[in-house]
Amino acid sequence: MASEAELITAISQVFAAPADSEIIVGIGDDAAVVRFAAPVKGASLGRSEKHLVLAADMAVEGVHFNRSWSSLFEIGAKTTGANLADIFAMGAKPRYILVSAALPSDFTAEQARELATGIMDEASKVGALVVGGDLARSDKNALVLSLSVTGEVRDPITRSGAQVGDLVIISGYPGQSAAGLELLRAGINDERTAEHKRPTIDYEAATAFALAGVSSMIDVSDSLASELAHLARASGVGIEILSDPAMNVHGGEDHIFLATISPQLPMPRQAIEIGRVVFGKGVRMDGAPLIHNGFNHFDAPEEFGEDFR
Amino acid sequence: MASEAELITAISQVFAAPADSEIIVGIGDDAAVVRFAAPVKGASLGRSEKHLVLAADMAVEGVHFNRSWSSLFEIGAKTTGANLADIFAMGAKPRYILVSAALPSDFTAEQARELATGIMDEASKVGALVVGGDLARSDKNALVLSLSVTGEVRDPITRSGAQVGDLVIISGYPGQSAAGLELLRAGINDERTAEHKRPTIDYEAATAFALAGVSSMIDVSDSLASELAHLARASGVGIEILSDPAMNVHGGEDHIFLATISPQLPMPRQAIEIGRVVFGKGVRMDGAPLIHNGFNHFDAPEEFGEDFR
Repeated sequence: MASEAELITAISQVFAAPADSEIIVGIGDDAAVVRFAAPVKGASLGRSEKHLVLAADMAVEGVHFNRSWSSLFEIGAKTTGANLADIFAMGAKPRYILVSAALPSDFTAEQARELATGIMDEASKVGALVVGGDLARSDKNALVLSLSVTGEVRDPITRSGAQVGDLVIISGYPGQSAAGLELLRAGINDERTAEHKRPTIDYEAATAFALAGVSSMIDVSDSLASELAHLARASGVGIEILSDPAMNVHGGEDHIFLATISPQLPMPRQAIEIGRVVFGKGVRMDGAPLIHNGFNHFDAPEEFGEDFR
Repeated sequence: MASEAELITAISQVFAAPADSEIIVGIGDDAAVVRFAAPVKGASLGRSEKHLVLAADMAVEGVHFNRSWSSLFEIGAKTTGANLADIFAMGAKPRYILVSAALPSDFTAEQARELATGIMDEASKVGALVVGGDLARSDKNALVLSLSVTGEVRDPITRSGAQVGDLVIISGYPGQSAAGLELLRAGINDERTAEHKRPTIDYEAATAFALAGVSSMIDVSDSLASELAHLARASGVGIEILSDPAMNVHGGEDHIFLATISPQLPMPRQAIEIGRVVFGKGVRMDGAPLIHNGFNHFDAPEEFGEDFR
């Protein structure tokens, strides 16, 4: 199979938008940001325009989730959370969700209800509404879930805004999801696996980071190590972090938020400081290059949406 | 497996929006219409607000398409066209597309490029831009394509606006796609199958219908017979049509547009008149009840998005 990098390069070339398009943030960030409404004639000045934020997430049975240990409720909630986190990572607010699903041939109405209830439960946490979608039959009996979220933002926060001298912060310690997955793979399905089956996403922290004026932000869907690398590359800077026994830089899917902030600004309450933005490129931990062998081990120059597995 | 009707009922109950929500057209039409921007203070009056239109479409290998007779270019274009037609059926204009795909393990960068080129080719016809998406690995090696389109509209045209006395019009004769599929199944893959592999969608006709002031409109993704039934039920009216040897009421996937229009209004150039809206319910052809055994043989009380196969 082609590597993710090769696939994304091929696709991105085809989908390249004309220079005069209304795309503000295109392929390569957590979500796309586009112009929706033209400025209204006669409207009061002094307020910036509200933009559309768009992100999609696909989850495939046997690749992204396992129905032998996760309930349909958890699968619905987790997939929705992953998609909503993309919107929050732009400093945006989600509004509307479309849900498409390819359903196995033996899927019952009760199972559809449980899956939908998980989606609704996560969406309700942030006031987003499911407004439509599409149902299909799955040929090979694997459940495929595909969500897209439409949100709004005035001033999007990208991965490319980190400035030399900024502090590097995270909204929580990554690793709980990966630890849970390891237990599940070893046949242990107890409460320590809860964060793998349905991560608790700190949406409030992302909003607090945005309000605090962070210079860049990214959703940690893969490993912290790989997201640090994405952020450093997109911003054209280096990053130095210090190790912490509480922090697993190689675990994925916790959906914590990684950001950078000027030391002149008051630190948001939820922020855990882990390092600093420096001249140069790449990521160093305790002075040594940080190799990212995250949960999703593709090294993409830019993401086409979220992650690839 | 549960019927589509049962699945949609289950899902729609869970996703029911609060009464005070900003949903203008929810689950059950070709696309959802939602409020995006609050009216701007001080803006000039007299122009109606621009709304967001959202629709999703999923296509599964072995269910919706067959790679042994359709190229990846055709599959990309056809799936995109089906999704764009949903937007046009609301009298809306598409703007932005998200593309998610679960890719078989042997998928090459060249194949990804061909698929993307088909998507782009159809999107370009209507000036829509692909702004992001998500790539996933397909566990069972079936290609799954999931698109969502965001569009804009001031005055959405739903399926529920047909008035007794209106004329029933279509933008073209359905049946070419179904005829092509029959040939392909018989092992014949010549130019007569082109409309099945990639339907030519008359987007201009949908726009002309909207400008002409049609009272209702629907995309004929399933058979004309089943879409007539949807329209009659949603509008609370009966429909009487006359048969025509050029019109296959049971073939699907041509994506012609079906609409109703007051006889007082000038008829759009593209319109083919096929019948009349009457008191009562159900659809009659040449005086006899029209049974719909369309290409997609689920009888759903309302659609959750587009079609179900």
